[in-house]
Amino acid sequence: MAASVRELSRDQCLTLLAGAIVGRLAYCTADGPQIYPVNYVLDQESVVFRTAVYTALGSEIDGQRAALEVDRLGGPEGFEWSVVLAGPAEVISDPDEVARLRHTSDPTPLAPGARPLYVRISAQRLTGRAIGRPEM
Amino acid sequence: MAASVRELSRDQCLTLLAGAIVGRLAYCTADGPQIYPVNYVLDQESVVFRTAVYTALGSEIDGQRAALEVDRLGGPEGFEWSVVLAGPAEVISDPDEVARLRHTSDPTPLAPGARPLYVRISAQRLTGRAIGRPEM
Repeated sequence: MAASVRELSRDQCLTLLAGAIVGRLAYCTADGPQIYPVNYVLDQESVVFRTAVYTALGSEIDGQRAALEVDRLGGPEGFEWSVVLAGPAEVISDPDEVARLRHTSDPTPLAPGARPLYVRISAQRLTGRAIGRPEM
Repeated sequence: MAASVRELSRDQCLTLLAGAIVGRLAYCTADGPQIYPVNYVLDQESVVFRTAVYTALGSEIDGQRAALEVDRLGGPEGFEWSVVLAGPAEVISDPDEVARLRHTSDPTPLAPGARPLYVRISAQRLTGRAIGRPEM
């Protein structure tokens, strides 16, 4: 018998987002969807990641709608859970806000090199699905 | 010293895509980017995955530009490699083509349930990056 898919509550989604460190970020351009793996931190009901200024991501993301997908793969069905946080992305310009993030939960960029831009995606939409096991 | 990022060749990208089974699919809608984990198979220079008819993905994807990201995480730098295949997505309507896929390399859907639609994304753009280790 196939395992069933369960929808996760907002609180369950936030708990899973808080426990992971890598997600895949997607946003749209005139050239179609762009998608990158990023290290992020959960900051209340948003996620924050760092990127470089002179990259496609760094120059395109501000003001865009974005989605971050985080999952855990494995098990006979292929994945255990998947959470998507979607909403507007903004480059954080407030130096106090950057200082706070830097001293509390600084996200470590996946790629080496300077990543001075802090980008926030606010959770306008937060959805998650889990397969198979009844417990998280 | 930080590890460097290497750009991967088209052949390296295809080899990595052939060896993995799960990717994250992104496409754009009026409501912003959508992103889902999918099981896929590499079919020459395209990827094929299955989905259901009466889902957002199944009803929206045909004719869209799409991107599939596949990666291997891990190591001190967070990820070892990431490959993105991007191009037009089309629902495969030719029954002979579906029969061929079914008998050779049928992609197993991640989520349980009927997934009769076969969707192909052609590799108009194929890019990859690897971090750290000189060998794949």
